Amino acid sequence: MTRKLRLGMVGGGQGAFIGAVHRIAARLDDRFELVAGALSSDPQRAHASAAEAGIARSYADWREMAQTEAARQDDGIDAVAIVTPNHLHAPVATAFLEAGIHVICDKPLAVSLAEGQALARLAHEKKRLFALTHTYSGYPMVRHARELVEAGELGALRVVQVEYAQDWLAEPIEQSGTNKQAGWRTDPQQAGPAGCLGDIGTHAYHLASFVTGMKPKWLSAELHTFVPGRRVDDHVQAMLRYENGARGMLWASQVASGAENALRLRVYGTKAGLAFDQENPNELWFTPLGGAAQRLTRGRVTSAIAAHATRVPAGHPEGYLEAFAQLYQDAALQIEALDAGKAPPPESRLLTTVDDGVAGLHFIEAVLASSAAQGQLQEVRAG
Amino acid sequence: MTRKLRLGMVGGGQGAFIGAVHRIAARLDDRFELVAGALSSDPQRAHASAAEAGIARSYADWREMAQTEAARQDDGIDAVAIVTPNHLHAPVATAFLEAGIHVICDKPLAVSLAEGQALARLAHEKKRLFALTHTYSGYPMVRHARELVEAGELGALRVVQVEYAQDWLAEPIEQSGTNKQAGWRTDPQQAGPAGCLGDIGTHAYHLASFVTGMKPKWLSAELHTFVPGRRVDDHVQAMLRYENGARGMLWASQVASGAENALRLRVYGTKAGLAFDQENPNELWFTPLGGAAQRLTRGRVTSAIAAHATRVPAGHPEGYLEAFAQLYQDAALQIEALDAGKAPPPESRLLTTVDDGVAGLHFIEAVLASSAAQGQLQEVRAG
Amino acid sequence: MTRKLRLGMVGGGQGAFIGAVHRIAARLDDRFELVAGALSSDPQRAHASAAEAGIARSYADWREMAQTEAARQDDGIDAVAIVTPNHLHAPVATAFLEAGIHVICDKPLAVSLAEGQALARLAHEKKRLFALTHTYSGYPMVRHARELVEAGELGALRVVQVEYAQDWLAEPIEQSGTNKQAGWRTDPQQAGPAGCLGDIGTHAYHLASFVTGMKPKWLSAELHTFVPGRRVDDHVQAMLRYENGARGMLWASQVASGAENALRLRVYGTKAGLAFDQENPNELWFTPLGGAAQRLTRGRVTSAIAAHATRVPAGHPEGYLEAFAQLYQDAALQIEALDAGKAPPPESRLLTTVDDGVAGLHFIEAVLASSAAQGQLQEVRAG
Amino acid sequence: MTRKLRLGMVGGGQGAFIGAVHRIAARLDDRFELVAGALSSDPQRAHASAAEAGIARSYADWREMAQTEAARQDDGIDAVAIVTPNHLHAPVATAFLEAGIHVICDKPLAVSLAEGQALARLAHEKKRLFALTHTYSGYPMVRHARELVEAGELGALRVVQVEYAQDWLAEPIEQSGTNKQAGWRTDPQQAGPAGCLGDIGTHAYHLASFVTGMKPKWLSAELHTFVPGRRVDDHVQAMLRYENGARGMLWASQVASGAENALRLRVYGTKAGLAFDQENPNELWFTPLGGAAQRLTRGRVTSAIAAHATRVPAGHPEGYLEAFAQLYQDAALQIEALDAGKAPPPESRLLTTVDDGVAGLHFIEAVLASSAAQGQLQEVRAG
Repeated sequence: MTRKLRLGMVGGGQGAFIGAVHRIAARLDDRFELVAGALSSDPQRAHASAAEAGIARSYADWREMAQTEAARQDDGIDAVAIVTPNHLHAPVATAFLEAGIHVICDKPLAVSLAEGQALARLAHEKKRLFALTHTYSGYPMVRHARELVEAGELGALRVVQVEYAQDWLAEPIEQSGTNKQAGWRTDPQQAGPAGCLGDIGTHAYHLASFVTGMKPKWLSAELHTFVPGRRVDDHVQAMLRYENGARGMLWASQVASGAENALRLRVYGTKAGLAFDQENPNELWFTPLGGAAQRLTRGRVTSAIAAHATRVPAGHPEGYLEAFAQLYQDAALQIEALDAGKAPPPESRLLTTVDDGVAGLHFIEAVLASSAAQGQLQEVRAG
Repeated sequence: MTRKLRLGMVGGGQGAFIGAVHRIAARLDDRFELVAGALSSDPQRAHASAAEAGIARSYADWREMAQTEAARQDDGIDAVAIVTPNHLHAPVATAFLEAGIHVICDKPLAVSLAEGQALARLAHEKKRLFALTHTYSGYPMVRHARELVEAGELGALRVVQVEYAQDWLAEPIEQSGTNKQAGWRTDPQQAGPAGCLGDIGTHAYHLASFVTGMKPKWLSAELHTFVPGRRVDDHVQAMLRYENGARGMLWASQVASGAENALRLRVYGTKAGLAFDQENPNELWFTPLGGAAQRLTRGRVTSAIAAHATRVPAGHPEGYLEAFAQLYQDAALQIEALDAGKAPPPESRLLTTVDDGVAGLHFIEAVLASSAAQGQLQEVRAG
Repeated sequence: MTRKLRLGMVGGGQGAFIGAVHRIAARLDDRFELVAGALSSDPQRAHASAAEAGIARSYADWREMAQTEAARQDDGIDAVAIVTPNHLHAPVATAFLEAGIHVICDKPLAVSLAEGQALARLAHEKKRLFALTHTYSGYPMVRHARELVEAGELGALRVVQVEYAQDWLAEPIEQSGTNKQAGWRTDPQQAGPAGCLGDIGTHAYHLASFVTGMKPKWLSAELHTFVPGRRVDDHVQAMLRYENGARGMLWASQVASGAENALRLRVYGTKAGLAFDQENPNELWFTPLGGAAQRLTRGRVTSAIAAHATRVPAGHPEGYLEAFAQLYQDAALQIEALDAGKAPPPESRLLTTVDDGVAGLHFIEAVLASSAAQGQLQEVRAG
Repeated sequence: MTRKLRLGMVGGGQGAFIGAVHRIAARLDDRFELVAGALSSDPQRAHASAAEAGIARSYADWREMAQTEAARQDDGIDAVAIVTPNHLHAPVATAFLEAGIHVICDKPLAVSLAEGQALARLAHEKKRLFALTHTYSGYPMVRHARELVEAGELGALRVVQVEYAQDWLAEPIEQSGTNKQAGWRTDPQQAGPAGCLGDIGTHAYHLASFVTGMKPKWLSAELHTFVPGRRVDDHVQAMLRYENGARGMLWASQVASGAENALRLRVYGTKAGLAFDQENPNELWFTPLGGAAQRLTRGRVTSAIAAHATRVPAGHPEGYLEAFAQLYQDAALQIEALDAGKAPPPESRLLTTVDDGVAGLHFIEAVLASSAAQGQLQEVRAG
């Protein structure tokens, strides 16, 4: 076996949801060992969290961690996982890139376009991996969907329908002060100007782009805040136009009573349609025009790209953690290749890049602008 | 048993889809007998069609039919069913209303707002029934959904998501000349300026309005024609704003490869969400915030309004024809009441009126205007 | 149009479930007019029920009805629908067959094998139609399933799984005296010795036989009565063996809390499997070995046999009443052919016959015998 | 953090399905590190497999491994995972128990009842953990189902329906010699006398027992082999009777074309019914008599027992590997308690024991006996 890669983590202290998820994901396929961390800005909480997670080297400060780890000749970390609130993604990533350390960063890339673009330039300059953990692109059936589109099985694409509905912010739970996650996610200082839009709207945007291979060129959008006193949007709706003439709609809401984590994508082309529902990720629906709907299943579909992301046979469901683990597995493949000066293996190519992250920030900018102008048609810039 | 009502029909000659549906619907609950018809503008086809349908009195001309039937003292028709292409709805309805005959008219009400408004004035003046057959409001679970909203079970409404996807026009089948229905439905002279919008977009609009009891006040919309050479839109997408602050999206498409007749509505309030799918009409999903999704079923739910529209017990599925029959059953109740100078019984009150039809035409106008202005926010007028 | 056939009805007075269903079914496709009836053994109730149903000729006694109607030269009934409690099926059918009148009889055929066999002999001798209304074989997708099996699409059949679960008798509702249907269905004098077995077990048996074209040759079975004080079984379970080596299981229960009318069939062959669920009758699942499950839908499948039983396009759901109407439509086709001395048209051939009814009685006998012998393997006789 | 437990593995060399699953499961919750192994009976393959899996100490022989590891004072393994073909379960487990090492063993416990009973005695005598990995009892919603039954939410249980359908042995794939797993699983020398029965029938049996808390007292069963030349059964069907009067059916098949891994359980009581489908393990259906079906979901249900087995929030699906990991997590809790001389924590109590394994062997014996006697009713012994 190749040696395991050494991983550090910034953020993800006790009680944080996404930090624990990253740790399981990194461990699941046995390609990383977590050896260093700056898990909290509160030093005491940082050390207690690190001890609980079995992390050998605990730092009170991520700047110090970047420098110290970079300086360790033999056993410094190969990569850092960034799982802080959004506003720290860019500064932390910058510090580790500067130190020559690969970065695996939770989404969104940054809280402003300018910040994200600077990060992208730096990542390219430093030739380090910059992987953005858009979890849902780790599902085998999402990757198979992309393959079907690429192979022309849907014909020319016409319609994209993507939505992401949750209900966990249907009430003003951030106002009690007890829900740490709700707190920072609805605080523009920590989450950025886009609330629901940045948190889950970008997942919807990314999933649609990932599967279709297309980014909308223009959009008309509206943000809305339903819960009184909330400081960011909790609902976004948008109409999309693509350069090839395709049309689309995107809806994301965190006040959709009864919805758990309902990320769904439907794509219709001249020859067929497909549908994916994140809550049932072991299946993908494919319906040829005039034919019967087919339930394609993980483990039975034969694309190499789906097989690469599959651990257990058909009928043995995989889930969210496996999808997340897939991103780490792909990151490991790319890091090994980069460190060896080789091209990353093709099966790892679906990892979300820093440039994808910049595209997501352009999308956010366009939605903010259109919404501020009563839904006026807005161009989505690129680059 | 009260006597059966005597029904006439205009349109619906051999091979027409919706005419046959109206005949089954009128017959199913045994409240009407079909005795007269002007089934085609081609006299020979009219008579052959009438003979095939067992209709005693066949007319070559609907104007003549209106006058002759009105003049029959003892056995003239009580009501006429209008199932012609859209552009004839208004003139035919006008003739029968003028003759004092109740009207049951396929949707849309008319091909222009002005025409529809004139019809509404006439119907009110003549005090005759004017029922518009928005089929999907005949489903017991749709009516139960409306009841849940009215009873406050969802709390204050926040989000409306409605869509109607089909694929039967994914290819230019109207251009071969062999599909009569595709022909007139894509011909602006017969269908009006709104293609997909008028054909199914209005069903989606009506279903959402019917269940929520709210009409959008502003909208931003885009029509699109995907199939080259097609003369009307085959795709519509719109974002909606309601007076109470609720937001919504409406999507209708006739090029969604793989979709059969996928009319779906989801409504989210502060307390719960609900979902209805026309292709599975015996169930309605109701999910309280924080609770388990409940599959409410026809025959098990106990609202009087659903029971009124139900024929067979839970687990014995009813379908499209039963929903359609419900409209005829309700029309019979209203006609009997009107003819007796009484108020229609409350359980018949959910029949779509001529005023609802005018509201639908306002919606069409607003969509056409917004789409022509690149999706600019547009007010939806009323009255 | 050919003239409508004249129908009489025995049983089905006010409040009876299945009588009302037969009347709608007979009317739906416009091939019958209901002109005579002996709707109740209580003369006053019989006449009131007939008046309510718009039946012209009401009889207090079915024997008198058979003779009187047979004697009417020009307008006597062509066929009689028998919708009485089970124990009257045979005597009533005998009277009408003797009078030369076609019979459409609710299932089961009779309450004993001997009675059923005598009826079969008489029907054959009199050359009159004897149609047994096994409703579920009227569904287009059930007929399409049969077609797939016949065409060899499943390969050699190996496994049959059929079940019919309800919960309406989970409590002793027959003991209050207010539920007329529960009363007679759990009274061995009226329902026969088989309770759940005769009521719904035979539907399950028939559906499996209809689709597979095979009848079990041996079985091991157990009847059980869960509700204290109940006089017939409310649960049946059986293991089946077919002559070709196939195996199967049959389960029927009326105490399965939460089940509405859950009749489901699954068949597995060497090449593919299929599944049908009566509560979702517009679809049929077909899964080739190693391939994706396909959702075949009514209106999209192209078999002539399914098209014959279809009224509205794909995505416009049909249900239980349409399935029932299909039996009447097929009966009309067969009656016209018989009366004209012609062979019935092939598309009407799937109507359940008196011989199928006898096979069902053999099945009941075998289950009763095996259950009495602690589940000992029992041969299912034929003929 | 408590120290990780040291784990050894016997079996699970390159290409083995279940060995890899155990390794991921052991790692997922970070409570074990895999440090020793005898992964194959072929020494070269054993060492190559160990190297690939990153296992430090590789043994060519499991007897030697048991003794050597037991002799290591400071870093010998705490527990061994046994993932060999079935016939080795008992001898390997015996060796490690004798050496005082805890055992985590893949199911079935043994290939004969006598062997299993001896093992149970030994485990009790040695006071070591003996956990049998009946994976499906690791699902949170299965545990929640058990909780609902225990809490009386279903009332008195009446009907149990359990089934496990696969199709991977629909063709004689064991006869080509290339499918190692198919080879040993259909070889009575390695798999034992029960093929499908031992492989998946016991899973169905265990799941039903686990959720209901009841074991059948009598059964009538039939084994069958559909594929010519196969040396073990590939299909089992059984009817069950419970001491409280409940009835049940069990079906397992490996030739059900189209079925992937379709383990499903339904239980009906006097007050409600429930349904679980292993392929959709994040939900559980609960339907009160007369009420609406409720879709209970992992992460939303609030039982402590489900929460203990849950890692990520509602709507973020967990799957088979997480269920498997749960068994390892529970095993860790029990091992720590045993080693500390404490009672295992209550939340770990649902782990399958050696006595459950003996019960499963009694079930196998009874099925074999009944099937040999043409389905004669057979008592299922205990102890």
